[in-house]
Amino acid sequence: MLEQLRDAVLEANLALTAHGLVTLTWGNASGIDRERGLVVIKASGVPYASMSAADLAVVTLDGEVVEGGRPSTDTPTHLALYAAFEELGGVVHTHSTWATAWAQATREIPVLGTTHADFSPFPVPVARELTASEVDAGYEASTGAAIVDAVGDRCTAEVPGVLLPWHGPFAWGATPAAAVENAVTLEQVARVALLTERLRPQPRPIPGPVLAKHFERKHGPRAYYGQR
Amino acid sequence: MLEQLRDAVLEANLALTAHGLVTLTWGNASGIDRERGLVVIKASGVPYASMSAADLAVVTLDGEVVEGGRPSTDTPTHLALYAAFEELGGVVHTHSTWATAWAQATREIPVLGTTHADFSPFPVPVARELTASEVDAGYEASTGAAIVDAVGDRCTAEVPGVLLPWHGPFAWGATPAAAVENAVTLEQVARVALLTERLRPQPRPIPGPVLAKHFERKHGPRAYYGQR
Amino acid sequence: MLEQLRDAVLEANLALTAHGLVTLTWGNASGIDRERGLVVIKASGVPYASMSAADLAVVTLDGEVVEGGRPSTDTPTHLALYAAFEELGGVVHTHSTWATAWAQATREIPVLGTTHADFSPFPVPVARELTASEVDAGYEASTGAAIVDAVGDRCTAEVPGVLLPWHGPFAWGATPAAAVENAVTLEQVARVALLTERLRPQPRPIPGPVLAKHFERKHGPRAYYGQR
Amino acid sequence: MLEQLRDAVLEANLALTAHGLVTLTWGNASGIDRERGLVVIKASGVPYASMSAADLAVVTLDGEVVEGGRPSTDTPTHLALYAAFEELGGVVHTHSTWATAWAQATREIPVLGTTHADFSPFPVPVARELTASEVDAGYEASTGAAIVDAVGDRCTAEVPGVLLPWHGPFAWGATPAAAVENAVTLEQVARVALLTERLRPQPRPIPGPVLAKHFERKHGPRAYYGQR
Repeated sequence: MLEQLRDAVLEANLALTAHGLVTLTWGNASGIDRERGLVVIKASGVPYASMSAADLAVVTLDGEVVEGGRPSTDTPTHLALYAAFEELGGVVHTHSTWATAWAQATREIPVLGTTHADFSPFPVPVARELTASEVDAGYEASTGAAIVDAVGDRCTAEVPGVLLPWHGPFAWGATPAAAVENAVTLEQVARVALLTERLRPQPRPIPGPVLAKHFERKHGPRAYYGQR
Repeated sequence: MLEQLRDAVLEANLALTAHGLVTLTWGNASGIDRERGLVVIKASGVPYASMSAADLAVVTLDGEVVEGGRPSTDTPTHLALYAAFEELGGVVHTHSTWATAWAQATREIPVLGTTHADFSPFPVPVARELTASEVDAGYEASTGAAIVDAVGDRCTAEVPGVLLPWHGPFAWGATPAAAVENAVTLEQVARVALLTERLRPQPRPIPGPVLAKHFERKHGPRAYYGQR
Repeated sequence: MLEQLRDAVLEANLALTAHGLVTLTWGNASGIDRERGLVVIKASGVPYASMSAADLAVVTLDGEVVEGGRPSTDTPTHLALYAAFEELGGVVHTHSTWATAWAQATREIPVLGTTHADFSPFPVPVARELTASEVDAGYEASTGAAIVDAVGDRCTAEVPGVLLPWHGPFAWGATPAAAVENAVTLEQVARVALLTERLRPQPRPIPGPVLAKHFERKHGPRAYYGQR
Repeated sequence: MLEQLRDAVLEANLALTAHGLVTLTWGNASGIDRERGLVVIKASGVPYASMSAADLAVVTLDGEVVEGGRPSTDTPTHLALYAAFEELGGVVHTHSTWATAWAQATREIPVLGTTHADFSPFPVPVARELTASEVDAGYEASTGAAIVDAVGDRCTAEVPGVLLPWHGPFAWGATPAAAVENAVTLEQVARVALLTERLRPQPRPIPGPVLAKHFERKHGPRAYYGQR
């Protein structure tokens, strides 16, 4: 049961380290089996070097643990995202260096080039600050709600990630592997955007036609990028 | 047929990853067989980790696919360069971090040192912005035309690469391996130039005699660098 | 005798290199056996690449060498920390890049995000400057005393590391491995804090409730992070 | 003949790559046999990945090639240093990223911390600009003369490296391995100094007593660092 999903979630967690997005244990990837209503997620505080399928937990959408050790402390955030967005198959959270710098600066990442436009036509948003009572009562679930607010009425394929203020990025996709790919892209977009501002403090925004072209040729109905 | 060229192009694509110029699938290297008029290029959206000769496409100079999967979306740009510059044997495109920062800042890279002078006696130019109609009708071929404009009446050995505004670098050479070497050099030149400006916002330009000496000792008619 | 501690200290020293905190021989990790009153520490100037248990020295709390070659020149600093703080089981010193930049800038690291809050509720302090006579008479022991002053009346679990001005970080923990983990965290906190200031010169401090939540959920009496 | 020196020079060249100081073929290490008056140096333009003892050249102090392919174009610079400073056993030149940024900014590296003080009590100097006629007639030998001028009446153990303006670093030592170690240190000192200035534009200089203490405990007559 869930063997394929477990494999995909284990692979996604290991990919976070391989891509340099994770220091020590700070990150987690999950995946969902929509039919069974079960989420597989990294257990809390587990080191990546020796991670195996046994270090994954299985929880219901209500957060009840069905199998494995204590799930990641961020599990309620993942669950809020799966509940809000039916199309999601995987969710990733990290404290990756460059995206975290933007998060700590509480600044959205502007669309400065085609690398960003290949990923999203919008700036990467910063979720709103939680109130003290939201932090006290269900901090992690409130965090999920704030991310959902930040996506707003846009579709998750156009907003594949969000920054938590003073914290770091969340990213998602149709599968755990796609969520990792979006987390990798968000990190690189964050890095190059910071460097771009060093070279030109107020960068000229990417012209609209080029932005649209890049997003559409990769994700639009007439996409012609990749093997299909 | 084309076996040697296929090997060279595969090796060039893998070298892009080995040199850290490529994130995920964002980059492509090609090579040309001038006698047959055929170009070998990476297929679109293919991951580098498992790439083999089967992940290469063969196209004519008119862009007709002769063998393999869908070629890189950037193929028309490569073809425009091969058509304009007979001396080119290889072309490379990446979104490498530091060169992309200059591209997103829409700034040419000034000649700040001998690493640059060993590569080119000119600043690395930024190609002109495309018009909305150029983007709509044949974006990738128009991109190639803009690169050709940026080289202008100089020879490609003196302008071994160009930045696409809001996008990233293209580089080239007599072979796919030489194109990769120029892409690696351009990235390092971009990196050190950005750091130099941190230490001195208006760096003094490299004196003319040193610039000329370095380019000439490596590329001039009386070059004395390397084994010959 | 001390075999387990020797293994732990060797592993901690090797982990410093594996985490990229050490250039050449610049760093050292130690551990203590409280019952026997013996400290195991890296020998002075030994390269990491070929390090074995034979490159460790054993010293008393008075600094007398019991076994092995000349101990690290920084040994008196380690001993001062073990003497002042009974709860410490391991101590680490490095010249890691980003933490050393803050140390050379003689600036404490402000709490800019949850990565920091997961580690400590306080800014990372800078120890006071030594007087000329402190430098002359027992420089390394005086350094230890200055670190103890910087912790002040707080507990070491809340101040898991300190910056030496113009020098670099010291970090500690209940075991040599925990000390390494704190050194890794301090370096990443230092790196992201520097980058955050590039994006926003006067960053808004992390709100108090989020800071408290993160430190408490990991280290407080009702902690719910990790497997327990 | 010279087998041991050849091994040491090969190892030093390979260490440049292992320490990340070299891109492509841009760097060279040499060593000298003072009794025979012969210098072993990397051949020009040779790739590091496949380098073997056969890729080394042997030259006299007058620059006559005794064995091997064409020596590095920078050979006359190395020879000038060996001629001027009898105590040198190894010389290294690279275009390493951070030291090259300072060189391109034509700024000496100030002594901002103990990492620098462990290496040299002086700022890392920038050699003077060559005149046009020095560039024309014997550029590489003139470069050597300018480095000798930059060391001045100080001893090479106190000035273990120099920056060439708009170019990059030279470093040296009693052996090829010691020269590599100084090149590695110079690069790290350059990196942390640049980052320090980001955090504090006009850093307070390291206090004199700490500077003296660190240089003396490692290199002075009563040094107590390392195994002796």
